[in-house]
Amino acid sequence: METPENYLPSLMTETPMQGRELAIKLARKSIAAIQTDPDTRKKLRNDYASNTAQLIASAQVIATEFQTIAAANNYWKK
Amino acid sequence: METPENYLPSLMTETPMQGRELAIKLARKSIAAIQTDPDTRKKLRNDYASNTAQLIASAQVIATEFQTIAAANNYWKK
Amino acid sequence: METPENYLPSLMTETPMQGRELAIKLARKSIAAIQTDPDTRKKLRNDYASNTAQLIASAQVIATEFQTIAAANNYWKK
Amino acid sequence: METPENYLPSLMTETPMQGRELAIKLARKSIAAIQTDPDTRKKLRNDYASNTAQLIASAQVIATEFQTIAAANNYWKK
Amino acid sequence: METPENYLPSLMTETPMQGRELAIKLARKSIAAIQTDPDTRKKLRNDYASNTAQLIASAQVIATEFQTIAAANNYWKK
Amino acid sequence: METPENYLPSLMTETPMQGRELAIKLARKSIAAIQTDPDTRKKLRNDYASNTAQLIASAQVIATEFQTIAAANNYWKK
Repeated sequence: METPENYLPSLMTETPMQGRELAIKLARKSIAAIQTDPDTRKKLRNDYASNTAQLIASAQVIATEFQTIAAANNYWKK
Repeated sequence: METPENYLPSLMTETPMQGRELAIKLARKSIAAIQTDPDTRKKLRNDYASNTAQLIASAQVIATEFQTIAAANNYWKK
Repeated sequence: METPENYLPSLMTETPMQGRELAIKLARKSIAAIQTDPDTRKKLRNDYASNTAQLIASAQVIATEFQTIAAANNYWKK
Repeated sequence: METPENYLPSLMTETPMQGRELAIKLARKSIAAIQTDPDTRKKLRNDYASNTAQLIASAQVIATEFQTIAAANNYWKK
Repeated sequence: METPENYLPSLMTETPMQGRELAIKLARKSIAAIQTDPDTRKKLRNDYASNTAQLIASAQVIATEFQTIAAANNYWKK
Repeated sequence: METPENYLPSLMTETPMQGRELAIKLARKSIAAIQTDPDTRKKLRNDYASNTAQLIASAQVIATEFQTIAAANNYWKK
């Protein structure tokens, strides 16, 4: 078994927008950690991108990951 | 692939009401990040706006995003 | 398109009970922001008030909104 | 329309156990705020007490309300 | 009606592992507070232990309870 | 009944990536605490790894566990 990619070197981002992108990345990586086959994930992705209940549930995961990232960055206050 | 729009220049808003509006925007942008086709989103939107379970799930996402925004703004205390 | 009502002038309330009422209001306003037709909302409301899964999901939204309001008010400590 | 009962005079409780009881009360009062008919609630309650998915969802609401109450009481630290 | 058992004398635990065990206990006690019949609970438990959606939902409740317990214990930092 | 494994000696990790791995581990251990039979878990795991709704719900549990771990580690700020 290969070493998993280090997809999270830091929670710090320069801007709030980069924080959103990191939140989306974390959500995707969680799914990849459970469903490890890329081809299956690709097929599943087409399914949930057209399913409103699952789109909303995905947005909930992103919102939760973003809470953590925003707190880590002290809300990017200057 | 074009550069994604910077829809979150800052978490700071002048008023609590603007914070709510930002929370709704963030929820919508998360869905747009997963379902990237605007026409499909428009069609899906009609579906979930008439589905109570999904309306409530959407309200949950907004509540979670608002937690982050409200904390960032120190609850708009004067 | 008319200016949306400012339904959240402040997160501060005098009492915990008023905080609960505000939490319920915020949950309802989120749904109104997505389903903008009042007649459709009225019809949908009858549906979910008799659906236990959706009642519980609504209570979850209220609990989340209340977390924010309670923190904003420093838990109404004297 | 009668004045709603003030079921939350304070978030403070003497013990963690009383905090749990308050969390359960808040969860129930949220449902009563949406489904205002006591007879309908009684009937619905029998339904969800035998439905595992809804029991677990109810436990999630209680956990969320308890987070707020526990923080308000500074975790009952002496 | 008998006095309910005091299953939560304190949120403090000596170790993180004991904190996990307390989180699981709290989740179970919430379900017992709603479904008060032990025989029904036993039967329901067999159902949800074989239902992946409900197992995951149960894990969500445990995660939420653990957040509270971990914060109460200041994350068991020495 | 054997003593349960101490799978959480500490919430502290050296890196954010190790924090993610711990979050995934905690989510899995919660499920194992409810469904105690390893063979049943293995079979169930194949089911939910191909079910998008359940993959997303699993990602939500991981996000919640990670919030706790990240706060415990003060977001790995140097």
